[in-house]
Amino acid sequence: MKFSIVGMGRVGSAIAFAATMEPIVSELWLINRSIEKAEGDAMDLTHASVLRNSNMTIQAGMVEDSAGSDVIVFTPSVSPTRADWKRQDLAIGNRDILEQWLPRLAELSPNAVLIMVTNPVDVMTYAAIRLTGFPPQRVIGTGTLVDSIRYRSLLSNELKIHADDIRAYILGEHGDDQFAAYSVAMTGGEKFFPSETARRLFRETVNLGYEVYNRKGYTNYGIALATMTIVDSIVYDLRHTMPVSVLVDGFLGVKDVCLSLPAVIGREGVTRILHPPLSDDEAEAFRNCAAKVRDTIDLLEQ
Amino acid sequence: MKFSIVGMGRVGSAIAFAATMEPIVSELWLINRSIEKAEGDAMDLTHASVLRNSNMTIQAGMVEDSAGSDVIVFTPSVSPTRADWKRQDLAIGNRDILEQWLPRLAELSPNAVLIMVTNPVDVMTYAAIRLTGFPPQRVIGTGTLVDSIRYRSLLSNELKIHADDIRAYILGEHGDDQFAAYSVAMTGGEKFFPSETARRLFRETVNLGYEVYNRKGYTNYGIALATMTIVDSIVYDLRHTMPVSVLVDGFLGVKDVCLSLPAVIGREGVTRILHPPLSDDEAEAFRNCAAKVRDTIDLLEQ
Amino acid sequence: MKFSIVGMGRVGSAIAFAATMEPIVSELWLINRSIEKAEGDAMDLTHASVLRNSNMTIQAGMVEDSAGSDVIVFTPSVSPTRADWKRQDLAIGNRDILEQWLPRLAELSPNAVLIMVTNPVDVMTYAAIRLTGFPPQRVIGTGTLVDSIRYRSLLSNELKIHADDIRAYILGEHGDDQFAAYSVAMTGGEKFFPSETARRLFRETVNLGYEVYNRKGYTNYGIALATMTIVDSIVYDLRHTMPVSVLVDGFLGVKDVCLSLPAVIGREGVTRILHPPLSDDEAEAFRNCAAKVRDTIDLLEQ
Amino acid sequence: MKFSIVGMGRVGSAIAFAATMEPIVSELWLINRSIEKAEGDAMDLTHASVLRNSNMTIQAGMVEDSAGSDVIVFTPSVSPTRADWKRQDLAIGNRDILEQWLPRLAELSPNAVLIMVTNPVDVMTYAAIRLTGFPPQRVIGTGTLVDSIRYRSLLSNELKIHADDIRAYILGEHGDDQFAAYSVAMTGGEKFFPSETARRLFRETVNLGYEVYNRKGYTNYGIALATMTIVDSIVYDLRHTMPVSVLVDGFLGVKDVCLSLPAVIGREGVTRILHPPLSDDEAEAFRNCAAKVRDTIDLLEQ
Repeated sequence: MKFSIVGMGRVGSAIAFAATMEPIVSELWLINRSIEKAEGDAMDLTHASVLRNSNMTIQAGMVEDSAGSDVIVFTPSVSPTRADWKRQDLAIGNRDILEQWLPRLAELSPNAVLIMVTNPVDVMTYAAIRLTGFPPQRVIGTGTLVDSIRYRSLLSNELKIHADDIRAYILGEHGDDQFAAYSVAMTGGEKFFPSETARRLFRETVNLGYEVYNRKGYTNYGIALATMTIVDSIVYDLRHTMPVSVLVDGFLGVKDVCLSLPAVIGREGVTRILHPPLSDDEAEAFRNCAAKVRDTIDLLEQ
Repeated sequence: MKFSIVGMGRVGSAIAFAATMEPIVSELWLINRSIEKAEGDAMDLTHASVLRNSNMTIQAGMVEDSAGSDVIVFTPSVSPTRADWKRQDLAIGNRDILEQWLPRLAELSPNAVLIMVTNPVDVMTYAAIRLTGFPPQRVIGTGTLVDSIRYRSLLSNELKIHADDIRAYILGEHGDDQFAAYSVAMTGGEKFFPSETARRLFRETVNLGYEVYNRKGYTNYGIALATMTIVDSIVYDLRHTMPVSVLVDGFLGVKDVCLSLPAVIGREGVTRILHPPLSDDEAEAFRNCAAKVRDTIDLLEQ
Repeated sequence: MKFSIVGMGRVGSAIAFAATMEPIVSELWLINRSIEKAEGDAMDLTHASVLRNSNMTIQAGMVEDSAGSDVIVFTPSVSPTRADWKRQDLAIGNRDILEQWLPRLAELSPNAVLIMVTNPVDVMTYAAIRLTGFPPQRVIGTGTLVDSIRYRSLLSNELKIHADDIRAYILGEHGDDQFAAYSVAMTGGEKFFPSETARRLFRETVNLGYEVYNRKGYTNYGIALATMTIVDSIVYDLRHTMPVSVLVDGFLGVKDVCLSLPAVIGREGVTRILHPPLSDDEAEAFRNCAAKVRDTIDLLEQ
Repeated sequence: MKFSIVGMGRVGSAIAFAATMEPIVSELWLINRSIEKAEGDAMDLTHASVLRNSNMTIQAGMVEDSAGSDVIVFTPSVSPTRADWKRQDLAIGNRDILEQWLPRLAELSPNAVLIMVTNPVDVMTYAAIRLTGFPPQRVIGTGTLVDSIRYRSLLSNELKIHADDIRAYILGEHGDDQFAAYSVAMTGGEKFFPSETARRLFRETVNLGYEVYNRKGYTNYGIALATMTIVDSIVYDLRHTMPVSVLVDGFLGVKDVCLSLPAVIGREGVTRILHPPLSDDEAEAFRNCAAKVRDTIDLLEQ
């Protein structure tokens, strides 16, 4: 299989390192505007890969070299240039980047599954479906997967239960309007949710991205492994369930917008979108996310 | 850490092979009535271990060699001598085996966590608590873990979702009176249960052990990896949740009997027993299991 | 990829368990004369595989079900019926088994790489090339790989160096005439060989198979992981070097016989046979092995 | 076990990510001059670790928090401030950093094994032995391990043999005077060395670090996995052999200087230094490296 990572910034490079440590494809391509940075990473990672039991090749390339990819991860992004940048500013800046890259990437790899990491990820996932012309099940945004693992990390620490067994979901927008789907959260068949603890840890979760950002200036490792979890499930057709940003199919009356819902991920991309029985409050929060993301989409499409 | 497997029959030997393929301790001891068979396995597995990246030693020994174990897996069993053997006959035969081994094993490794594989496992787990004098949280029966993975295997095949994400539980007795806890089963936040499919696959599950037994004369691989899942969670203190046979703590009015409930497993054994909100029917089935297992315990203690 | 294991005896079944614990293909087929035993193992292993992160299917089948295999491991063998059985008796008994299976297996999977485990493995590898009509590089006998790992295990214990770093080879016949290629053995760039210790441990190595056999009545775990090492290198095209039984290409004047030499194993089978600079004594021992194996081949072809 | 990484620059942070992806200790501590950066990485990596099957904790700390470490990796370094910086300038700048950190680190973790990554690594390893007062076998420099894996990477590509089976060593100084020990290089028992190809690829190897540096401004992934290979061998007492910078013990008349030789690495650090039978040219090159490194040591100790 051929796996291309577009963008060798902090996030793309960390994804490439993770893909080198656990090689699951035969060809890894690093595609970057500056080929030099991609070449440096490809050489460095090729040396690292001597220490893994694999025959994966790691190469740097231009957009043309991505041709025939089975999986593409898209990470490029503008950098905030003012302290008061909002998600809308990011959306407008990154729309241009998507327009430069995505039509050509899609043309070169018409059967790829595309994973969008660029923020605001729900809006970008929606734009990517339009720009690639791919069927929606082959365009997946990392969405609230990283928020959900952060939430599970806090809950795990509190409950003294392994995070993988805490089946709690942050759904909706990957942004300030996300919500915790308390009503469907379980661990070991027991319901610990909702509770004051669960609410408090959710509030902490919403801020965790900022907390990391404020300390190191970016986030990359959590999102890198979250992305690789999606890639794994595609490459091996594992059919794992995870909350990711998908084109919502009418659930709770929401359509024509991308938001995170639990979905089954396999070789063909999203093989099923799950429909958790949300409470009224949660359903309301989901519709609220839809409206917010829709507004930004409209702004971009003007 | 020191890990001892008692009994080098089909099951114990398969557990030892699994432990060699994924070495997680520094010392593996194979303890068997016939030291020759244990020596043969230890030599064979030592050769196999050359191909793993580990420094684990694998040795054969007598009961004395198990001294200071951190984890002990107990597998010895009589063989059925008549086609019409019942669980009671097995219970009576294996009680003697437990009496020969367990007091001495417990004396030699007073801080070990003990995992019981010998059937009927709920009755044997109860007997093991008595015979070792260990606190109940340090005695774990494999219980319905293997039934639950069989059920998840069938459901996975039907739902096209990875078995690890299908959080469905078989609880109660590891035997004919076990039940599926439909009311707490979820996958990806969605409830697929109960349904006619779930019921049908549960009925198949109950027979699956016999189906394997009828074809190969024993079952060993499923139970071997199920056992190693428990061992892993102990050795690394992973705090995973899984349905295992534990001394029930009063849940639904049941006490002083071992049955399977979801439990959290860590370095100290069972760190928490979970209390799923069962339906009335399921609660009734649980109490029924308790009565059945209690009967066999009473029979043995006469 | 499709991987078929023929023969569900002690060895074939252990290989199937190893293949389940580390799934590297999408389809695993268990082919056995008695379909019931294969079905039992397939069900049991399917349950075990719930606990691995894979989507590999495990199925039982008849020879027809092996069609289109990429890799086939062949393990069936007669059982010794007298205590004084010799390798020749085994050869004669197993020739018939090969004749029943191999032409049809080859016809159904014309592009497979075939790994021979059946003993006497050098003679059987030679016969398999004839019976399948496969190019010799696609027929590999496990040969002295298992002897070499046993030798490295003893050396590792003595030198206190990891066995993987002790590049010592047992070459020639997988049988009593095998020899240690002291002159090319190295560890960490240093030559510890030959030495009295190396000679003593070699003499122990030759007996180790019997030692295991005498204790447990068969050997299976070492040979199972040795076999999976070959399968891994094929499936992932790893190009690892290992001593295996191959059709010798004229090295030291030896031709038209199968013996173990270090070889490079990749997707197409043997991609290169290596030619270690053996000492005169070692070269003589190699020619002696060739003569012995040739005798048995002649016996079978009469 | 407790593992502390000192310095959260590009290299330290990549090592921390690798340690998160393959958790082998129970406590990972990130120690940095700026606690904020270490906190950001610790939070980010804690989120990533939700996706691994481990209970390792990841925490940020000050030097005091490293107390009781079993393994310490030391990575801090000054940044070159002029384009024409030489290794001597780096040595002088980093000596001060070592003096600030190492005595206190050693005092807090008197039994740790210390791995030096800071360049010029041979000089820094020597200085670390002095500053910590540790026995030399507990101070290991990454040395030519990364050069050797680069060389094996190029050879693997040329020979079509897995790099792990190409036992070729770059020895001496981690710097421009390093040399390839052709006379002891082997692969699969065969000697491909020396050859014009081997010489050409060695010349490429010497430049590879600069090639990566010129493209991405630093190197981090190859050195990160090389470092983790050393850490693995310590934590699991694997006794792997690898070329690392050690206090040379009189080999070829060289003493009182740190250079890379193949060494066996276990729980106690360097358990044995190997003495490959070098050719006269190689021995001369080794002595030349000793003189060069000695000069820099003398410069620092004035």
